[in-house]
Amino acid sequence: MSPQRPKVVIVGAGFGGIQAAVALSRAAVDVIVLDRQNHHCFQPLLYQVATAALSPAEIAWPIRHMLRQQRNATVFMAEVKGVDLAGRSVETSAGPMSYDYLVIATGATHSYFGHDDWAKFAPGLKRIEDATRIRRSILLAFERAELAGNDAERQRLLTFVIVGGGATGVEMAGAIAEIARQTLANDFRRIDPRNSRIILIEAGPRVIPTLPEDLSRYAERALTRMGVDVRTSTRVISCDAGGVDVDHGRIDASTIIWAAGVVASPAASWLGAAHDRAGRVLVRPDLSVPDHPEVFVIGDAAAVHESDGEPVPGVAPAAKQMGDYVGRLIAARLAGESLPAFRYRNLGELATIGRRAAVVKLGRVHLKGFIGWLFWSFAHIYFLIGVRNRFIVAFTWLWDYLTFQRGARLITDVPPQRKG
Amino acid sequence: MSPQRPKVVIVGAGFGGIQAAVALSRAAVDVIVLDRQNHHCFQPLLYQVATAALSPAEIAWPIRHMLRQQRNATVFMAEVKGVDLAGRSVETSAGPMSYDYLVIATGATHSYFGHDDWAKFAPGLKRIEDATRIRRSILLAFERAELAGNDAERQRLLTFVIVGGGATGVEMAGAIAEIARQTLANDFRRIDPRNSRIILIEAGPRVIPTLPEDLSRYAERALTRMGVDVRTSTRVISCDAGGVDVDHGRIDASTIIWAAGVVASPAASWLGAAHDRAGRVLVRPDLSVPDHPEVFVIGDAAAVHESDGEPVPGVAPAAKQMGDYVGRLIAARLAGESLPAFRYRNLGELATIGRRAAVVKLGRVHLKGFIGWLFWSFAHIYFLIGVRNRFIVAFTWLWDYLTFQRGARLITDVPPQRKG
Repeated sequence: MSPQRPKVVIVGAGFGGIQAAVALSRAAVDVIVLDRQNHHCFQPLLYQVATAALSPAEIAWPIRHMLRQQRNATVFMAEVKGVDLAGRSVETSAGPMSYDYLVIATGATHSYFGHDDWAKFAPGLKRIEDATRIRRSILLAFERAELAGNDAERQRLLTFVIVGGGATGVEMAGAIAEIARQTLANDFRRIDPRNSRIILIEAGPRVIPTLPEDLSRYAERALTRMGVDVRTSTRVISCDAGGVDVDHGRIDASTIIWAAGVVASPAASWLGAAHDRAGRVLVRPDLSVPDHPEVFVIGDAAAVHESDGEPVPGVAPAAKQMGDYVGRLIAARLAGESLPAFRYRNLGELATIGRRAAVVKLGRVHLKGFIGWLFWSFAHIYFLIGVRNRFIVAFTWLWDYLTFQRGARLITDVPPQRKG
Repeated sequence: MSPQRPKVVIVGAGFGGIQAAVALSRAAVDVIVLDRQNHHCFQPLLYQVATAALSPAEIAWPIRHMLRQQRNATVFMAEVKGVDLAGRSVETSAGPMSYDYLVIATGATHSYFGHDDWAKFAPGLKRIEDATRIRRSILLAFERAELAGNDAERQRLLTFVIVGGGATGVEMAGAIAEIARQTLANDFRRIDPRNSRIILIEAGPRVIPTLPEDLSRYAERALTRMGVDVRTSTRVISCDAGGVDVDHGRIDASTIIWAAGVVASPAASWLGAAHDRAGRVLVRPDLSVPDHPEVFVIGDAAAVHESDGEPVPGVAPAAKQMGDYVGRLIAARLAGESLPAFRYRNLGELATIGRRAAVVKLGRVHLKGFIGWLFWSFAHIYFLIGVRNRFIVAFTWLWDYLTFQRGARLITDVPPQRKG
């Protein structure tokens, strides 16, 4: 690093952070990418790790390997503790790092709407560790049911509750139904996994409410056909180790998965900036923080609105577009130029439900069923990082499709067992 | 399970336990397989998980899935606490389980020769969790070196000590050398991973002492050519968080891997049976426990000798042969017949060192270099469980061979970070 070149510090190497770094590859700057993990995670397929279809390494890639060819980029694995706006310095676990431009792309985490104590009963799905933890609880539930001493305990162990009917909740519910009805169908002797109850709880009137109504209805029908008990207009009142209380009664369940809400990472408190109810920093039209044109917040950590006032959704393409915009904007400013305000280009929305069933909205085009599922599969393989991962994921999906199997049914790091 | 059929309880689903269950597939018995894990692990490739080449699920397979077609077999994920020989019952985390025949195939774990406190500084490699832990420490060492504040700390972080020059130690040392010299060569900015020190310590005069001398010499030369500092006739005096004391001095190192010794699982104490220094139960020629013809110990948990007095080695083929023998013996006894004493059929020995370098002994045939490496690769793919895993491992090895890469460079479950 030459001392005279401006330093751009990027915090977080998700879709937004990586894209910002790449957009600066030809700029005369030193780019420093900080992340507390060593890997970039392809979050749209995280639910497939949680449901034993893929291995963690197939959807994660070392950040420094992704940026190894970009000679102006340095990657540090370090955790950010705060920002000194006046001193233009980031406080990290590896000491302070000064910046000329700062890009915060730290994403979001699960929100329990003020009930953070539910987290230990109902894990959410944001990181690789969350996915392997959920995989362990799903697979352990079946193992323990095979050993259960009585029917009530067995039924509780074979009940899976997914809270939240957005895309992640729908994908999790569909995948767990496939595990119970297909993958494990012949593997047990005392229990029949096909008798499992999979319950999807959604507070609103329909699943995936961001999709048009016809696709929501199709998703609900497809889930029901797969044996998922879809309960819309149902609210969770509390979660505990034994199950969930909803406004219509009690559900005894050993596995609860939280897909209901997200809250932005603590960027707003680092910056002392104004934020919305979900903790997202209210940024200016160029994604900078008010009064600090050298500091940007992008992706799920930022509250951005389209020209019609609609909020930009918290999806990968939005984060990538913001990262690309901010990278280009910094390069333009250094050249004494400027860019028009950020504009989100909506590429569509899609979610898979299970074998041969997915919903896709591309502008006015609505796809569902087998065609939707093919489109979903190819789109996700296309956007994966690395040729090797694309090949292995494609092979794995084809294999699983033909054999009804899942290759990553691994229980590791088991906590001490109770007596069954 | 019909109550009148004899019950065969098999403890441990490694190579020996699985083979015993399979050998009983046509016998009129109820087979119960107990394991504290849900998966069978292909231990010969565990070092490839520890060195980021393969993902855990590629070398592990659910036990109940392996035995799903065998209708007389039931698999329980439960931990064994002890054996009531008089009452013919196994005490488990899921309650007591009675047996008519008992097969103990619980394997071995690392031995620190009376210094169990070294375990936290120098992890060994027996389970999937060990492998992901070692992978994390190797990859974290490079990440922390990139952030290190001074040369001494940087050098300590880039020093890797492998204790034990048997096959596992040689394979680990070769793989870490490849990571440092090839995989990571261009990924860092402040450090050059090629300056790492990889030190292999062996107490005896040569590496892989079970192989003929010419193959040992070749392995040592190949390791040295790859940049490994091979120190034979060197003893470890103590291990701590900062490094290793050997009889020739001190080595500061952040990563120490233990491949020096194994001790049998506590089968001997469960049975109150006589055992050798490594804790292995001294079994009779039919692998049964003295005075208990209905109880067998096989694999690494048993001390078995060939007719010439040589001990049967602790390798996968030996465990498989013992499992097969005991399964057939139980079936024969139930039919009122008998079998001659167990005889070990030595199929050879092999170890890989790195790209295009391996050593193989098949009777009088000695292979080394590229031919040995090809043989090693095909043999391991052949013995893997499942067509899918064979295909993915073969593809991964070919890809890594062509690109010098490793696809599973994932650091997960990181302990809290110290300030660099």
